[in-house]
Amino acid sequence: MKKIKGRRLPGIFLFAAAAIMLLTGALPADEGMWTLDNMPLQQLKEKYGFEPTAAWLEHIRLASVRVGDGGSGSFVSPNGLVLTNHHVALGQLQKVSTPQKNYVNDGFYAATAAEELPCPDLELNVLISMENVTARVLAAVRKGMDPVKALEAKKAAIAGIERLSLKKTGLRSDVVSLYQGGEYWLYRYKKYTEVKLVFAPEQQAAFYGGDPDNFTYPRHDLDMALFRAYEKGKPVKAAHYLKWSAAGAAEGELVFIPGHPGSTNRLLTLAQLQFQREYAYPTRLKSMKRMLAVAKKYAAKGPEEARQAAGMIFGIENGLKASGGEYDGMKAPGFMEKKAAAEAEFRKMIDANPQWQAEYAGAWEQIAGAIEKMKPRIKELSYRRVPGLRLGGIALQIVQLVAELQKPDGKRLDGYHTAELDSLRFRLFSPAPIYPGMEEAIAVDSLQLMLEELGADDPYVKACLDGKTPEEAVKVLLAGTQLADPAVRRQLVEGGEAAVAKSTDSFIVLARKLDPLVREMRKWQEDNIESITRPAGEKIGQARFAAYGKNAYPDATFTLRISYGAVKGYPMNGTLAPYKTTFYGLYDRAASFDNKSPFHLPQRVADARDKLDLATPLNFVCTGDIIGGNSGSPVVNAAGEVVGLVFDGNVESFVGRFFYDDTANRTVSVHSAAMIEAMKKIYGAEKLVQEILGQ
Amino acid sequence: MKKIKGRRLPGIFLFAAAAIMLLTGALPADEGMWTLDNMPLQQLKEKYGFEPTAAWLEHIRLASVRVGDGGSGSFVSPNGLVLTNHHVALGQLQKVSTPQKNYVNDGFYAATAAEELPCPDLELNVLISMENVTARVLAAVRKGMDPVKALEAKKAAIAGIERLSLKKTGLRSDVVSLYQGGEYWLYRYKKYTEVKLVFAPEQQAAFYGGDPDNFTYPRHDLDMALFRAYEKGKPVKAAHYLKWSAAGAAEGELVFIPGHPGSTNRLLTLAQLQFQREYAYPTRLKSMKRMLAVAKKYAAKGPEEARQAAGMIFGIENGLKASGGEYDGMKAPGFMEKKAAAEAEFRKMIDANPQWQAEYAGAWEQIAGAIEKMKPRIKELSYRRVPGLRLGGIALQIVQLVAELQKPDGKRLDGYHTAELDSLRFRLFSPAPIYPGMEEAIAVDSLQLMLEELGADDPYVKACLDGKTPEEAVKVLLAGTQLADPAVRRQLVEGGEAAVAKSTDSFIVLARKLDPLVREMRKWQEDNIESITRPAGEKIGQARFAAYGKNAYPDATFTLRISYGAVKGYPMNGTLAPYKTTFYGLYDRAASFDNKSPFHLPQRVADARDKLDLATPLNFVCTGDIIGGNSGSPVVNAAGEVVGLVFDGNVESFVGRFFYDDTANRTVSVHSAAMIEAMKKIYGAEKLVQEILGQ
Repeated sequence: MKKIKGRRLPGIFLFAAAAIMLLTGALPADEGMWTLDNMPLQQLKEKYGFEPTAAWLEHIRLASVRVGDGGSGSFVSPNGLVLTNHHVALGQLQKVSTPQKNYVNDGFYAATAAEELPCPDLELNVLISMENVTARVLAAVRKGMDPVKALEAKKAAIAGIERLSLKKTGLRSDVVSLYQGGEYWLYRYKKYTEVKLVFAPEQQAAFYGGDPDNFTYPRHDLDMALFRAYEKGKPVKAAHYLKWSAAGAAEGELVFIPGHPGSTNRLLTLAQLQFQREYAYPTRLKSMKRMLAVAKKYAAKGPEEARQAAGMIFGIENGLKASGGEYDGMKAPGFMEKKAAAEAEFRKMIDANPQWQAEYAGAWEQIAGAIEKMKPRIKELSYRRVPGLRLGGIALQIVQLVAELQKPDGKRLDGYHTAELDSLRFRLFSPAPIYPGMEEAIAVDSLQLMLEELGADDPYVKACLDGKTPEEAVKVLLAGTQLADPAVRRQLVEGGEAAVAKSTDSFIVLARKLDPLVREMRKWQEDNIESITRPAGEKIGQARFAAYGKNAYPDATFTLRISYGAVKGYPMNGTLAPYKTTFYGLYDRAASFDNKSPFHLPQRVADARDKLDLATPLNFVCTGDIIGGNSGSPVVNAAGEVVGLVFDGNVESFVGRFFYDDTANRTVSVHSAAMIEAMKKIYGAEKLVQEILGQ
Repeated sequence: MKKIKGRRLPGIFLFAAAAIMLLTGALPADEGMWTLDNMPLQQLKEKYGFEPTAAWLEHIRLASVRVGDGGSGSFVSPNGLVLTNHHVALGQLQKVSTPQKNYVNDGFYAATAAEELPCPDLELNVLISMENVTARVLAAVRKGMDPVKALEAKKAAIAGIERLSLKKTGLRSDVVSLYQGGEYWLYRYKKYTEVKLVFAPEQQAAFYGGDPDNFTYPRHDLDMALFRAYEKGKPVKAAHYLKWSAAGAAEGELVFIPGHPGSTNRLLTLAQLQFQREYAYPTRLKSMKRMLAVAKKYAAKGPEEARQAAGMIFGIENGLKASGGEYDGMKAPGFMEKKAAAEAEFRKMIDANPQWQAEYAGAWEQIAGAIEKMKPRIKELSYRRVPGLRLGGIALQIVQLVAELQKPDGKRLDGYHTAELDSLRFRLFSPAPIYPGMEEAIAVDSLQLMLEELGADDPYVKACLDGKTPEEAVKVLLAGTQLADPAVRRQLVEGGEAAVAKSTDSFIVLARKLDPLVREMRKWQEDNIESITRPAGEKIGQARFAAYGKNAYPDATFTLRISYGAVKGYPMNGTLAPYKTTFYGLYDRAASFDNKSPFHLPQRVADARDKLDLATPLNFVCTGDIIGGNSGSPVVNAAGEVVGLVFDGNVESFVGRFFYDDTANRTVSVHSAAMIEAMKKIYGAEKLVQEILGQ
């Protein structure tokens, strides 16, 4: 895809909140990213003659892994082996690489436990329990409460539930808002932060065809990687792991995709969609294109710069292609009409029932009103950013963290609640390298952009530039900071407010100046936007339950879901796309482009040609409903075996952010047979194959 | 494609007349199907640094062959070997097959001259000379002449020029109207009717991927066949034949496509386009779908029926996909707007010059007026057909032929002029088999359709049914006819009017009843439509010369043209389509569909896998501008060597009927290296390879 969950640019996705799937009549085939408490058992039984038991679902849940802050994965051996995508592992591969040893380009294989490479900052989460806490959250809000107070109260209640749970169980505890606030659930996770890299092919094999082929099908990617989870120095003994199907996915077969879809916008109101189309997407695309140009210019300086920027370039290109596709989908004839018709039908149902009308009908206007209020501040909300790729963000986090820790948990800014601190510290103190050259290039351009969009008189811009040009300002900032050293960050945090207040580190000094402006924006957004849109969203969510029942799934929230569907080709480009591709196709595509980049074969793949059974399935498609965040999800059959590994959606799935249409929307996966064939015959990872196959 | 020129259903293409290409400003890249007297030498020189000499053009012209009434080809050996497409050869393959020996399914190879199979009715034509006769044709029309008389005079003049030329030279002589009547040219052809089949692969190799893959790319078809032209029992010693390039087309290379594009509609007026979109296309698509259903139902009866219907099913599916694509293109957003803008600009230029305005401006209204006049008779013009697949047409042709022969040449119906008689007799007396079962199925359904659309009271329907049901009427017709026997047809024609008048053959009896009705429709069309639209079209053609000069090519007319372009991939489905495919891709596609029809490998191809160099280029694309009729065209490089064999356009080229856009419009060809590799290693046709390579 890369179906890795994109980092959001600040201010852009104010309205991309969770929402419930719109159901107008019968559920379309194979649609939905279902929570495990509400699986569409009836549909599964009727359409596929299969009804997962509670034990089946529990097994899948406990074998499923959330990887980092944007990916999915699964345990595939009793010794803690975690299968995910190469592109989900890319960040770690980049971080463990050095100018001397480029694991992104060359791949990696630890034939023994001793050779496994510790990851600097990868957190894995396994969903241990789920508890409906809607009543507890909503009890915090008293009738007639001022909206701003109500929002505060709700946030405090959520922080309290999480804190209490963490204290009681020691497990990571997140309260998740589902169905646009129609329900709140406490999800508890077993967390693993001791993770080692075991196997990854060369990026050219994993991401064969590069940006052109990204998000397309037919496809020929070996987008896989293997980590191993450890606890206290020992490989995790996973009681629940997925067995492997060497035969893999067959045509027409029912398959399931457990994973962590990041976000969908299937239930935005028309006003929100129009805002996205008219403002949010054009702004985002513009910023991304600009950032890509900066990153490519930096990479062109030399091989080491290219190595440093590789992951970032991948990430931006990936996001750009996805967002560009979504934007094209929104602009396509019929898109808005379709959405308008669905909203009109829903609102007509609500208006026809006097009780519903009184309770819910105002919500749409409230949301539209909030959007209008936001428009005058839209530039500030979009373009005020902390300069640099990582340093600015780190500095601001340190400044805010030491301040927030002084407050009672319920009063803190989101992101700094007690239950969130472990993960925050894990990331903040990561030993992963920070590259000054990249920091500089990105910082200069983002200051330049701010200057262009907000003008020199904007107080935020003033604080950043301090009378200098962007180039000068960044030079000074980089010369005066030690934050690239994680020990320095740790000292500052441990020194608390006093240490931070005294610090003369250039980025900390800047962050102290920016912090009040950032807080003002956040407060303004909460008081003027979020306090309106959240309860309005809740009302629409409740209206949906009223009108359509709970035969529905919530919009994606980067929490565990199960999608299902059939392995199935589709009409494409005037003909049919087959349900699978083969290694023949990989060699064809390379030869068709005369082995030119990005269609060249890695040397090891070229060399293995005569050893491989070229008819081995390589990638395949199924109708399962996914989105970014599902990257690395296993594809499992009814027996619970791995038949594939999700790594992408096709171009026809871009509009899946807004609605699902099974005509051509397809999930693209690596076939389980291809992984075995490649590990054995290309990479000589026979031992891993044995571990996976349980031999 | 099959870029074989489709037979037109009567009445539908009244307005699809030849027209000049619209030029508004600079000529778009690689556009155009150029006549040899007016090659875009300047553009070729500027863009590709190549300027074909007169000798180069003459060589290409004399090596180019028009194949039958819908295809192209070329001489590729000094011994009369003619290369064309399998799908161009399909009709002959079908006709030489028997219930015992199915050359369509099994392929054919004559290892010796004695094994070559005579074709029953294939005519090849080589363009020997071209002469501008515009002045002679236009001289027949006197100023102020009544339009109906003027049309008659012009037709008589054309028939006279053809007759005189035939008498003088013995060569087939056709007067061609180019640039919508802006120019008339006398084209003389050397004709070959003694043609033998030499080589064809199995249809499954030639048409791999079947209807789904038809008109798409990437593609994997070995769509080739070889004939040999004979004269008086000896292979033709072709002074001009194309040498072979074993390396074949390379990326970016300049290539030329000499061939016989059938028809384009790039210069229809907006009124004509709207008529096509609103009426002609929907009617045609409806009829084709219906005919396809009948043919498939017939084929389902058994293997012999399937064999008989195979060529017809191919033809209808091919036409349906092309026409469906063209229709979708016309309905797509922006299509009509684009055409309207071009027409508006052109007419503005004409209106701005008082002399042009006076001379030409009325033409558009005249055409629009003629369309309006036609609408009340549209059903008769569209649905009155002679029943049956071949017998009805044969009968009508016999009845009309003996009558027309009594008249002076200039007064005859089109199709019966002296210069046309040889080819007419060649087809009419063809010994190719006629299948009663197929005749019956098609006839019953076409009578049924007439009954539905025109009603039982229509005189034409009455004459056909004679008070019976379609089933009964057809039974009687088939029981009472001997016309399947070519000797019977010959006797009737030789017996002249007297023999035909006396004949009790059921189809002849019916044709005698239908003939006056057919003549009435034709006369009405000439007097009311053609006599208006032809001079109006000429005016628009002249207006174009006035406004844009002759830096243009005429719409396609199934006469020799040369297109040119570069071997080049294109953006497709979110990624890039490579400029070529390879044999790897063929095996991939078969394996991807689990070797299911229509993606299964012919046994010989499967067996040859280890002998083949799988990286050999199989198909490739170039920007050259083609349309149906170009099937079988050689693709030649600047050295005049065969680098490929045109067999299709991609789906993006469907709108090429109306305009050319080089972004994704591509010609699809078999690579010259693939033909050699396959003939050698799959078909064991080493001797042919030697003949072609001149070894």
